[in-house]
Amino acid sequence: MTVKNSAPLHLHEVKINDPFWSRYLEIVRKEMIPYQWDVLNDRANITIEKERNDETIPSEKSHAIENFKIAAGLKEGNHYGWVFQDSDVYKWLEAVAYSLHHTYDESLKYLADEVIDLLELAQEKDGYLNTYFSIEEPERRFKKLAESHELYCAGHYIEAAVAYYETTKNEKALKIACKLADCIEASFGDEPGKIKGYDGHEEIELALAKLYQLTGESRYLELSRFFLYERGTDTTFFERQRKEDTGKRHVIEGMTHRPLSYYQAHKPILEQESAEGHAVRLVYLCAAMADVAYLSHDQEMLDACRKLWKSIVQKRMYITGGIGSTVDGEAFTSDYDLPNDTMYCETCASIGLIFFAYNMLKNEADGTYADTLERALYNTVISGMALDGKHFFYVNPLEVNPKNSVNDPGKSHVKVTRPEWFGCACCPPNLARMLTSLNKYIYSIKDDVIYTNLYLTNQSSVVVNGTKIELQQETNYPWDGDIKFLIQPDAPAAFGLAVRIPSWSKTYKLYLNGEEIKEQPHNGYVIIDREWQGNEELLVSLDMNIQVWSANPYVKANVNKIAIQRGPLIYCLEEVDNGDNLHLIRIPKTEPFSYRFEENLFGGVGVIEVTAKKRVVQEEWENQLYATDLDEEYEEKKVTFIPYYCWANRASGEMQVWVAKE
Amino acid sequence: MTVKNSAPLHLHEVKINDPFWSRYLEIVRKEMIPYQWDVLNDRANITIEKERNDETIPSEKSHAIENFKIAAGLKEGNHYGWVFQDSDVYKWLEAVAYSLHHTYDESLKYLADEVIDLLELAQEKDGYLNTYFSIEEPERRFKKLAESHELYCAGHYIEAAVAYYETTKNEKALKIACKLADCIEASFGDEPGKIKGYDGHEEIELALAKLYQLTGESRYLELSRFFLYERGTDTTFFERQRKEDTGKRHVIEGMTHRPLSYYQAHKPILEQESAEGHAVRLVYLCAAMADVAYLSHDQEMLDACRKLWKSIVQKRMYITGGIGSTVDGEAFTSDYDLPNDTMYCETCASIGLIFFAYNMLKNEADGTYADTLERALYNTVISGMALDGKHFFYVNPLEVNPKNSVNDPGKSHVKVTRPEWFGCACCPPNLARMLTSLNKYIYSIKDDVIYTNLYLTNQSSVVVNGTKIELQQETNYPWDGDIKFLIQPDAPAAFGLAVRIPSWSKTYKLYLNGEEIKEQPHNGYVIIDREWQGNEELLVSLDMNIQVWSANPYVKANVNKIAIQRGPLIYCLEEVDNGDNLHLIRIPKTEPFSYRFEENLFGGVGVIEVTAKKRVVQEEWENQLYATDLDEEYEEKKVTFIPYYCWANRASGEMQVWVAKE
Repeated sequence: MTVKNSAPLHLHEVKINDPFWSRYLEIVRKEMIPYQWDVLNDRANITIEKERNDETIPSEKSHAIENFKIAAGLKEGNHYGWVFQDSDVYKWLEAVAYSLHHTYDESLKYLADEVIDLLELAQEKDGYLNTYFSIEEPERRFKKLAESHELYCAGHYIEAAVAYYETTKNEKALKIACKLADCIEASFGDEPGKIKGYDGHEEIELALAKLYQLTGESRYLELSRFFLYERGTDTTFFERQRKEDTGKRHVIEGMTHRPLSYYQAHKPILEQESAEGHAVRLVYLCAAMADVAYLSHDQEMLDACRKLWKSIVQKRMYITGGIGSTVDGEAFTSDYDLPNDTMYCETCASIGLIFFAYNMLKNEADGTYADTLERALYNTVISGMALDGKHFFYVNPLEVNPKNSVNDPGKSHVKVTRPEWFGCACCPPNLARMLTSLNKYIYSIKDDVIYTNLYLTNQSSVVVNGTKIELQQETNYPWDGDIKFLIQPDAPAAFGLAVRIPSWSKTYKLYLNGEEIKEQPHNGYVIIDREWQGNEELLVSLDMNIQVWSANPYVKANVNKIAIQRGPLIYCLEEVDNGDNLHLIRIPKTEPFSYRFEENLFGGVGVIEVTAKKRVVQEEWENQLYATDLDEEYEEKKVTFIPYYCWANRASGEMQVWVAKE
Repeated sequence: MTVKNSAPLHLHEVKINDPFWSRYLEIVRKEMIPYQWDVLNDRANITIEKERNDETIPSEKSHAIENFKIAAGLKEGNHYGWVFQDSDVYKWLEAVAYSLHHTYDESLKYLADEVIDLLELAQEKDGYLNTYFSIEEPERRFKKLAESHELYCAGHYIEAAVAYYETTKNEKALKIACKLADCIEASFGDEPGKIKGYDGHEEIELALAKLYQLTGESRYLELSRFFLYERGTDTTFFERQRKEDTGKRHVIEGMTHRPLSYYQAHKPILEQESAEGHAVRLVYLCAAMADVAYLSHDQEMLDACRKLWKSIVQKRMYITGGIGSTVDGEAFTSDYDLPNDTMYCETCASIGLIFFAYNMLKNEADGTYADTLERALYNTVISGMALDGKHFFYVNPLEVNPKNSVNDPGKSHVKVTRPEWFGCACCPPNLARMLTSLNKYIYSIKDDVIYTNLYLTNQSSVVVNGTKIELQQETNYPWDGDIKFLIQPDAPAAFGLAVRIPSWSKTYKLYLNGEEIKEQPHNGYVIIDREWQGNEELLVSLDMNIQVWSANPYVKANVNKIAIQRGPLIYCLEEVDNGDNLHLIRIPKTEPFSYRFEENLFGGVGVIEVTAKKRVVQEEWENQLYATDLDEEYEEKKVTFIPYYCWANRASGEMQVWVAKE
């Protein structure tokens, strides 16, 4: 095992000390990580929400740590929970790794080290690691890959191990990961005797790319390339495995009727032109493709990434950065099919979209990737958790009516309050690892240019061309559009600093050491390329005017509606502020919106108000559904928009992002 | 067995000879009945459509007649198909009965008599009749009533037998029915040793009321009242049966998670204030309640009917007379929740709504019942079949985009072309019996008044107060609003003739023997109460102006949209006439609609045209989903509306009933 590079991927150290994000980091550290630990150990007194009306889903408890103890031989018993239950532990471990990087905590590290010890015991001699198959059906190992999630779980462990090694230098964690990867390599590949196939849920591919980057072991990159290129070439693979499988139990019930596109296995990746199937799977695949394209200079793979990126962002993405237009298969549907109240918009899918965007930024500095990364992060991703850090959304709707969630089984997946935990608990730990790794996403470095992707108060050390540069951001973003950069290279050095001008910022101003820089952004960035002397101050001022968005006319759900944005935040109307029947509200064209920062709401957020019109429902409507002779009447009504990510933190009620316009 | 009355229920004989409806009667006689006979005997070369992505549903063939042969001991084998497969044969038989009444056909009667002979053999000694339980699980008889459909099937046989006896005087058919009813009476009731419960699917209740009316046997009415009043009183009944059930097989898989409201068993019928659960079940229940309330002068039950009627018609019914807002449970959801593209609107549910309306008319002469009867009949019901009589819709959407039906599993129940047959084939034979019994619905007689409910060319003999009256209607309805009545009593007689003024007819004219009658309608009818001399001519002229409807503002799906109606027909836009992206079309307020009869379309239908505006999708939209700076542009576009019932008879494409207005 050769460790190539023990520093974070982009050779920069980042300390976040931001009024907006530090709160989240604290919540993850103080609430989510301990809370999730209790859940994983079945010690939390919580109500676990079944996400489907399916009696076959076990969800009374997590049992995830218990599964490992049983697999390790420390306890007797059966596996309980989903076949991919292990991944909850791995995502928790990954979040712990990132969190320790922000705030070192000896007792937390001790817990995590103990988990590593347990995993070592649970790992089989040949490196295989999966509690379901080790405990219940060892003979079925790798024999039902469409459903088994074995490589998916392995991938999550590898990601966690890479992160944990980077922070703590725990060699055991990395050794387990390499042994696991070696076991997979011994089992899969083109060579005779190996399985020429892949997992139903992509994840191992992006994890192997990370393991390669850390260890420099090119076999891992090659194995990732094998999985990517093999996918969808032999469209009979899953079916053949199903036929040959002698196991009596369903690994996951009800998955056999899914089409191959659900797994992105309907055609080879280079031929896939639109984002199809299960949204999380698709973005995990794309994230892997983008990273592997970058690491192996694979132009064809990069072109395929670009096509899929466009399919998502130009045809199939909600304005909140949510993806997945239907609950059935948690999947993409068709171009422009973006219903606001039956969609899925899984928190995990937007997290995966961030991975994809970030890996595309490694390939090419284009602001569209960072724009989307920011859009997903500030809206769908953080909408996935309550402000208390203890309640979570799996599904992030753009329009909700509590009555429909209760009375229409077709909308029962759309929760109106965040449940405490889920039987299929992918989202909460995914959120934890996303938020704690935020530092990774702030800058990208490419060809001697430091690209700024996110704006938040932080202090970073970046190495460009051998020169160490201290980079400081100070800002009250997202409420404020002014960002002050302090640039302090170790010694005078020539490099570029690329300032992202978000697509929502119609205008902007830049001042370097007090002098205005008038330059047009190129691909979303203004690049200030010069010899930096040290102690330089760059002021960026973005356009924080309220933006009124219309949707593409092909989006039927948003005809005659608008959405409100300020800075990176999409806004919404909630019943608690505006009464019920939000669909009766219309926003006049000429009325001005006003913004104010509300100190006492949600610990301080910016709200937007406007004098709207609300349709009056005349008495005559009481007893009739249809009429030919009733005019529309309106009354003035002041309405209040709050940031989308804050919704459902007060009372259960209606919510709407897209609002009718006059 | 005492036969009380062998004539049709309302002592009138009706001969339909109508340009609109005779075609349907011919289709049923010449196409549907022979075709369905072939299907029931597995001789039709058809594709059976699975209505769900559920591998547990058997639907390769009907096997319905074969099941009876096996139950009768004429063949060896197993039951195949749904547990309620028998009812397909019964509904076919009922349609045959009505059809023979219109056009006598010796060979068809011969076929039907043979079926009766077969049923006699399949019936058990104690009167029990059900092929699934007789063949497969006789020990489970009446032990899983939530799912078993045993009384549902029995009810359909009884309805068929009553109709068949009325037309053919086949005593054997009636004897089987009475024996079956007696078997049920011996098994169910308040008395010790009997089952204090009811079927999961209402139907026996309305059938027993019919059997009572034919035979005068009050035990049947009492048994119906028992089932109605027992329903929902003991909410543990289904659950107890499930627990006590020792059978290993699912009778119907996946039904156990349904709430009690799905079966209208959540509370006693007198306490049910809103239409809940499976829509067909609810309207079958209501139809029974309305008939039993009428037959037993039960004012409380009638009040309960009125409440449920209002819940449907004032809060939960589509403008097409469709009901059932969600596919999941084929059920009602909430007040005003009427989505146009995910709804169910099952053909059978609108047929059941007609039964309910008709039975309410027996209780009280209120035009709202006949209005709704007409609305359901001319729109959702006949939309349920293709103009060739060989293809059928189960689901009748108000808005369709073929792409979504293919790519969104949440809309996969919404077919864009009518399949040939269904695994669960309730709708096609239900349509056949509905259309062939149309004569029943034309008039209601109450308190010496003949109420006209439907307008179509027909010749009827009605007996009022002992006087036989020949009543003739001549009309080109629904294309034309003029109806000529000829009233010819046997001898001069005093009675009322009530002319229904449909709620869509804002104005009307009435001329009796050339003299205008100026009278306001009362509860939807103008009653001409006089001594009729004979040879009188009444001209009714309804308002055939095109009506532009708005929906109640609480109906979110129809905000800023209109629907077009002319006469009883709701109209729609189809892609084949108007291009795709129908949602981009807006109807200006001031543009006049024009109507013309198109001889060459669908054998002659009235189409409506208007110069609308269609939104132009500017090039700038090609690569973006959201924009802040693109104005809406429109171009003029002439659009053509066709009657809703005609949709999907040309090409597969988009369709929309509710269209955006300017």
